[in-house]
Amino acid sequence: MGNSEKSISSAVIKRLPRYFRYLGVLKANNITRISSKELSEQMMVTASQIRQDLNNFGGFGQQGYGYNVDNLYTEIGKILGLDKRNDMIIVGAGNLGQALANYQSFNEDYGYKVMALFDVNPKLIGISVRGVKVLDIDEMESFIKAHDIKIAALTLPKDQAPEMAKRLVEWGIKGIWNFAPIDLHLPEDVTVENVHLAESLMTLTYNIHNREESGD
Amino acid sequence: MGNSEKSISSAVIKRLPRYFRYLGVLKANNITRISSKELSEQMMVTASQIRQDLNNFGGFGQQGYGYNVDNLYTEIGKILGLDKRNDMIIVGAGNLGQALANYQSFNEDYGYKVMALFDVNPKLIGISVRGVKVLDIDEMESFIKAHDIKIAALTLPKDQAPEMAKRLVEWGIKGIWNFAPIDLHLPEDVTVENVHLAESLMTLTYNIHNREESGD
Repeated sequence: MGNSEKSISSAVIKRLPRYFRYLGVLKANNITRISSKELSEQMMVTASQIRQDLNNFGGFGQQGYGYNVDNLYTEIGKILGLDKRNDMIIVGAGNLGQALANYQSFNEDYGYKVMALFDVNPKLIGISVRGVKVLDIDEMESFIKAHDIKIAALTLPKDQAPEMAKRLVEWGIKGIWNFAPIDLHLPEDVTVENVHLAESLMTLTYNIHNREESGD
Repeated sequence: MGNSEKSISSAVIKRLPRYFRYLGVLKANNITRISSKELSEQMMVTASQIRQDLNNFGGFGQQGYGYNVDNLYTEIGKILGLDKRNDMIIVGAGNLGQALANYQSFNEDYGYKVMALFDVNPKLIGISVRGVKVLDIDEMESFIKAHDIKIAALTLPKDQAPEMAKRLVEWGIKGIWNFAPIDLHLPEDVTVENVHLAESLMTLTYNIHNREESGD
């Protein structure tokens, strides 16, 4: 609501969704308040980190009471922009695109709305995934403009992703959730969030082998 | 080969797969050597960061020559453990599990081998994804032991994931690539690499709304 919360570090921002997830679970279990100590034990971070992080947003806790779960959940949701309309499209309707469309949690827990999937494959065009249609990629420009879509998940192969990302931005997309294993170079006012799956798997592999060796 | 490279920071480890990916692209384009300056421009990190990072592993560069792409690619691959057998299973053969099995890059670029997918759904059991069978989850214990599998991708719903993770570890799994939106609490010698999709989408959303506002 017009608060000027501009200078929050990206490390804090990265932790907010995790707070939001934990608070959502507490809410679902009808827990109405929680101390920073209890929250810290569940989340496995220090209580002082929690207090510090949440103090960035005006400090929702009260001495001796702890945090009001409902209130904190709502406020963090607002900070994340989840109180706004977050309509999105998915570019590429293969398994990964369909998995994202099927992922109930985005929709039911966080209010994202997948408006359409797009693909070039005639076998996919026309099918529905959880009630959402796969449309011809040729219709994408007009769809983005007509529905004022700002968020696109990009699940195309890496050789097609950079060119498609450029076009998406020309058509009005402001945030790209990039699953293609390639870095996108886009204008500064566009946000890219990468999910580089192979890199995450390699980090896992390093840690497995390193632990095994140090255990010898 | 028995080097004692134990005290490398996790920040460096997180960057290694990205170096590996870039070097793979150079290799595919038949580029045999590259200066840290050129590499830094492509990767959009500083040349001094690259030199520092790679010095952790004995410094592969030569003054005035730069890096031998092939050699550096091979060495980083070894550090990541990609020269070893990395057989894996995928637990959950829904869209996401199938997307992972289909993802060519793991296999062709990095040598991971998906040995089987597992599911409880009789409609999925028996089908093949890229030549890999979906097996009944009841066969999983004996499969893991028979094939000495160490890596499992976990794509089950969050209410089933923690219990399944525990069992996987009992059966010998050392690394869990966790896609369930829940934190797993496992013994210390087990590595968990989380891909929390909803959290990455929320970070994207925060950045979109924040940039829009500061642009007003």
